[in-house]
Amino acid sequence: MTKKEVIVLRDLLGTNKQVAAEIRCELRARGILAVNLLSSPGSGKTTLLESLADRFRDRFRMAVIEGDIETERDAERIRAKGVPAWQITTGGACHLEARMVGKVLAGVPADLDFLFIENVGNLVCPASFDLGEELRCVLLSSPEGDDKPKKYPQAFLSADVLILTKSDLVPHLPFDPAKASEEALSIKPGLRVFQVSALRGEGVDELAAFFIEALGRLRSARA
Amino acid sequence: MTKKEVIVLRDLLGTNKQVAAEIRCELRARGILAVNLLSSPGSGKTTLLESLADRFRDRFRMAVIEGDIETERDAERIRAKGVPAWQITTGGACHLEARMVGKVLAGVPADLDFLFIENVGNLVCPASFDLGEELRCVLLSSPEGDDKPKKYPQAFLSADVLILTKSDLVPHLPFDPAKASEEALSIKPGLRVFQVSALRGEGVDELAAFFIEALGRLRSARA
Repeated sequence: MTKKEVIVLRDLLGTNKQVAAEIRCELRARGILAVNLLSSPGSGKTTLLESLADRFRDRFRMAVIEGDIETERDAERIRAKGVPAWQITTGGACHLEARMVGKVLAGVPADLDFLFIENVGNLVCPASFDLGEELRCVLLSSPEGDDKPKKYPQAFLSADVLILTKSDLVPHLPFDPAKASEEALSIKPGLRVFQVSALRGEGVDELAAFFIEALGRLRSARA
Repeated sequence: MTKKEVIVLRDLLGTNKQVAAEIRCELRARGILAVNLLSSPGSGKTTLLESLADRFRDRFRMAVIEGDIETERDAERIRAKGVPAWQITTGGACHLEARMVGKVLAGVPADLDFLFIENVGNLVCPASFDLGEELRCVLLSSPEGDDKPKKYPQAFLSADVLILTKSDLVPHLPFDPAKASEEALSIKPGLRVFQVSALRGEGVDELAAFFIEALGRLRSARA
């Protein structure tokens, strides 16, 4: 990078951090647990959200902000589950920024429990942008390979939770879930690890329980 | 983006384009076919290159430039096939730029046939950076889903070739190869489409034959 590029990036990240801090403050005050989902394209973010929507139905109020370069496809899938969804199409940009989330926030119902933010499918750039979330989850699908954490360390380092997805495909693949989580834990000790097959509904209950617990903690801290 | 960011990006892309044009000119003069491989992380770029190395052995001289954020893992896998490989670790940057390729080029053997450039695993940012390649291939693995071309249009629009990878997994997935290629062709008419399973060696001969033909055309044009 040139000196000018470095300065622009520093300004950009600085402004983003400030806006994200304001969003986090507002969401905590409203008692809403915000979760930022990060992964490569096609790792199963939307399918996981569909599966969580089935679990939370009638018990919790959830909403989704969908980040995509183009199309409303993901928001339409979420709405079909009866869950409110806002689509942010970045029109080429490779990540969401806090100000984009901030614009949507005013329209989000006040009585929400969970706000999931599905980032643009990209294991690199979104990792540098705080969106004001309470929890950051990185998804790694089994077909992507167990060698990915060290190749894309920032995504794993910045996450609180690792979700190994598409576990139903493991028997057909050269993928070792233990190796993937060990490598991720060597980058970020303390990372919580879950393994799911959202298509088959396996492991999603445990993950839902974890989010419910985290919501409880957020609200106790507020009280 | 702010006005300052737009100006920096325009300058960056302008400089990159110029360096890429010089690289293309040099490679054509040397009769080397350069191929830029673009995809999400874990779509099978390195496994495809290993499989091509087996096909070209004793018949063609191939070399690989590996782009990764961190680790030398991919270059080591290629070298284990007896193919010279240069690792560019970008240290956080989300794509290769022409100047990075230019620095490696001086050390590339003069008597080469194919130079493959494996870009950083990212279906977004690398699409904006010409590396001086003759052919750009975008890979889409079946587990990523057949809805990806319209969600990440720039990668497909900028490519000459679409390679549908991991076809061995199709029976286990909600993935329709015809739908994926139709959608990609609606973005970029004339795109050449191949379907491969590099793990099983299926479809790789057809792709290798296509590269050999392209090499022949490059050298005829030069003569």
